[in-house]
Amino acid sequence: MEFFQVLTLTEARKALAEHWPRIKREPIVRDLTEALGLELTQDVVAGENIPGFARATVDGFAVRSRDTFGASEGNPLPLRLKGEVLMGRPAEITVGPGEAVAVSTGGMMPGGADAVVMLEHTESLPSGWINILRPVAPGENVMREDEDVKKGQLVLEAGRRLRPQDIGVLAALGYRKVVVWEPWRVGILATGEEIVPPEAKPGPGQVRDINSYTLYALVRSCGGEAKLYGIVPDDLDLLRERVSRALAENHVVLLSGGSSVGTRDLTLRLLAEWDEGVILFHGVSIRPGKPTLAAVVGDKMIFGLPGHPVSAMVSFELFVRPLLSYGYFKSPEEEPVVEAILSRPLLSDAGREDFVRVRLVAGEEGLLAVPIPGKSGLISTMVKADGLVSIPLNKAGLEAGSRVKVRLFA
Amino acid sequence: MEFFQVLTLTEARKALAEHWPRIKREPIVRDLTEALGLELTQDVVAGENIPGFARATVDGFAVRSRDTFGASEGNPLPLRLKGEVLMGRPAEITVGPGEAVAVSTGGMMPGGADAVVMLEHTESLPSGWINILRPVAPGENVMREDEDVKKGQLVLEAGRRLRPQDIGVLAALGYRKVVVWEPWRVGILATGEEIVPPEAKPGPGQVRDINSYTLYALVRSCGGEAKLYGIVPDDLDLLRERVSRALAENHVVLLSGGSSVGTRDLTLRLLAEWDEGVILFHGVSIRPGKPTLAAVVGDKMIFGLPGHPVSAMVSFELFVRPLLSYGYFKSPEEEPVVEAILSRPLLSDAGREDFVRVRLVAGEEGLLAVPIPGKSGLISTMVKADGLVSIPLNKAGLEAGSRVKVRLFA
Repeated sequence: MEFFQVLTLTEARKALAEHWPRIKREPIVRDLTEALGLELTQDVVAGENIPGFARATVDGFAVRSRDTFGASEGNPLPLRLKGEVLMGRPAEITVGPGEAVAVSTGGMMPGGADAVVMLEHTESLPSGWINILRPVAPGENVMREDEDVKKGQLVLEAGRRLRPQDIGVLAALGYRKVVVWEPWRVGILATGEEIVPPEAKPGPGQVRDINSYTLYALVRSCGGEAKLYGIVPDDLDLLRERVSRALAENHVVLLSGGSSVGTRDLTLRLLAEWDEGVILFHGVSIRPGKPTLAAVVGDKMIFGLPGHPVSAMVSFELFVRPLLSYGYFKSPEEEPVVEAILSRPLLSDAGREDFVRVRLVAGEEGLLAVPIPGKSGLISTMVKADGLVSIPLNKAGLEAGSRVKVRLFA
Repeated sequence: MEFFQVLTLTEARKALAEHWPRIKREPIVRDLTEALGLELTQDVVAGENIPGFARATVDGFAVRSRDTFGASEGNPLPLRLKGEVLMGRPAEITVGPGEAVAVSTGGMMPGGADAVVMLEHTESLPSGWINILRPVAPGENVMREDEDVKKGQLVLEAGRRLRPQDIGVLAALGYRKVVVWEPWRVGILATGEEIVPPEAKPGPGQVRDINSYTLYALVRSCGGEAKLYGIVPDDLDLLRERVSRALAENHVVLLSGGSSVGTRDLTLRLLAEWDEGVILFHGVSIRPGKPTLAAVVGDKMIFGLPGHPVSAMVSFELFVRPLLSYGYFKSPEEEPVVEAILSRPLLSDAGREDFVRVRLVAGEEGLLAVPIPGKSGLISTMVKADGLVSIPLNKAGLEAGSRVKVRLFA
C-alpha cells in the first residue's frame, strides 16, 4: 500500500484550485430565461446607450432649469404649459423659454428641457399655465440617455456567473440568447460490497445507498447536472468499466466509499493504471472527511469521498461545492454565515480542523448553536443539523458561550 | 384615487405571512432525485431500524468486552481468532469467551460480541491468535442497529423542505418516490406603455423589458416555476384578460410597473372588480420599493412590484423570496450575512428603512462594503452590487467605518 502525505484543508484546496482550470467545458447557447447561474464565455460590451434617451424620473413638468431659479412658495414663477409627453412615445414638443411640458416617470424628456419639477412643487393655474414653487438644478429628476449603460462599455466580463440582475442588463441590451459554458456534469458512483439500492430490501449486513442520493442533490444545489452510475462492488474490472464511462460522460466523477479500506486500494490501483492520472491528495487533516482523495485524469477530475454519509457530505461542502459554484475557494470572511453562541464546550485535537454539526435554536441573547453528537455514519445527525461550526487547526476546542460562525447548509 | 396607509416593512410582512397559508397547492409524486427543495405533504415515520443490524465502526476485531479488561501493552491478552465477517454478508460466526472475529468498518457484528478492538490496538500471533493491547468498553466502536433511526420514529415532519441530507435519510428508509407539494408557480407580467420586449429595437421613448427577466430568474432561484405573460399596455380589458389567465395558471402573479402612476389605478380598478380580492397593502416605508402592492384574490396572491428595475428586485427580495423559499419571514439574525465595514457614511430619512446596494472589496481590516450610488431605475447598479445593507427605520444614517451586515444576492 502506498502512503500519502495528509494535507491540511488549505493545502488540499490549493492543489484543487491549481488544477481546476484544466477541467474543460464546451460553450452552449441558452435562452436568457435558462441562463441563470451559468457563466459567460465572452465579455459583453454594450452596443448602445441605456436607456437610449433622457427620461424623467418623477411625475411633473419638464422645464429649462434657469426658468425656475428663485421660485418658492412665496415667489411662484408661472410657466406656460405647452403640452404633454405620452409614455412610450417620442417627445415631439420642444420646451422654449417660459414654457413647461407635462411628463410622467419614465417619459422622454422634450427638447430644450434640462430638468423636471415634481408635480408636488407646482400648482396649476387656469387657462394653461402652472406655477413653479421650487427651483430645480440642471439635470435634476432626469436620467441621462447613457446613465445606466454607455455604448462601448464593458458590461459583464467573460466568466461571469449570471445572476438575475445580469440577466436583466442583457435583456436591456437586446439579448434573448446568450453564449455560456455548459453546466458542470458530475457522475456519481457508490462503491462497497454492503451497499444496495434504496428500492431493495437489505439483507443482514447490507445497507441502502445514501451517498448517491445526497451527492446527487448536492450537485444539483450547485447548479450542476448529476448522473448516477450505480453501485460497484469490490471488483477492479467492473470499477474500471464504470469509472471510465462516468469520466467519458462527465467533467467530474464522485466516488463515495472509494476511499474506505475495502475499495481504497482498488481506486488507487485504477488511478495508477492511467498514465494521465495524477493524485492531488489522499487524506486531509479534517474531521469528518479525512480519507478524501482527489485526482486529475486528463481534463477530468475524480473525488474519492468517504463512505460515511456525514463525512461524504462535509467533504463535498469543503471541496466540491466551491469549485462547482464559484470555480475557486472563497476566503472565510466572504462566505455567508450566521452568528450564534455555542451552547456547550467542544473539544478537538490540535493539528486537525473539526467540522461540528450544529442546530440553531433561539436563545435569550440571540441564536444558540447546539452541537449534535453522533458518529459520522449517522445520516440522521445531518437531518437534525442546520449547519457546521469549524474548530480551527491550532485550537484544542471552543468554550461554551463562544461566539461562533455557522455555515448554513444550502 | 384611493389612498392607502403606508405600512412598515414589519407590518407588511405580517399581513403577507397571515394570508400566505391560504395560497393552495396540490400534492405531486416525485422521484427522490427530483425532490430537492420541495416540501413533504406528510410526516415520514421510520418503518424500520437504520442501519438494521449492529455494525463495526472501525477495522478490527469483534470481541466480548469483558475479555479485554486489564489489557495493555505491558499485559497483552491473547484471544483466539475464530474467523472473519465479510462485508455485505451476514455474520455467521458467534464470538464465545476468549474468542475474536475480524471485522471491517461497516461490517455486521457477530453474535456474542459487544465491542470492537481497533486493528492498531492488537498484534497478530502465530497460529490463529491475536493479542489485545487495550481494553474496550461495552458498545465501543459499534453502531447499534437502531442508532441512526429507530423504527416508529418521526424522521421528517410534514412541510419539511427537502435538503440533500433529508433525501439521504429517505433513501436509507427505502423511498424511491416521495409525495411533495408542487413547486410554486409564478406568473410574471410587465405593464407600461413604454415597455418593449428584448428582441425589439426600442423607438424614441421606449425601453426594453428588464423586470420580466430579472423576476423570472429570481423566481427560479427560489425553486419556483416561472412563466412570462408578456407586456400589457394601459388597457383595463387587456390587463383583466391577462391577469385572469395568469391567476388561473399560477399560485402567485407578479405585476411589475403595476404600482407606478400610469397603471396603478388600472390595477386597483381591476382588483376592485373582484369580490374575492383583498388588498393587503399598497405602499411600504422602504426605499427603494415603496410603491409595492400586495393583494389576495381567492386562494391566489398578486404582487404589484415597482417599475424601476432596482426597486422591483429589492421588493422581490424583501417580500416574495422569503414566502417562496420558506413560507415565512426569517428573523434578521437567522438570515445568512457577510460582515463588512462601511466605506463611507450613508444618510437616510428616519421613518423609512433604506436598502443600499453595496459591493464588497477586500480591505486591510477585512471586507469593505462600498455603497453604489445611482437611481433605482439603473439596472447597472445592481450588476455592480454584491448585496444590500439596511439602514433601520429609526436611524438617520450610518457612519463610515460602521460594522454592517451585508445580505448577499442569491
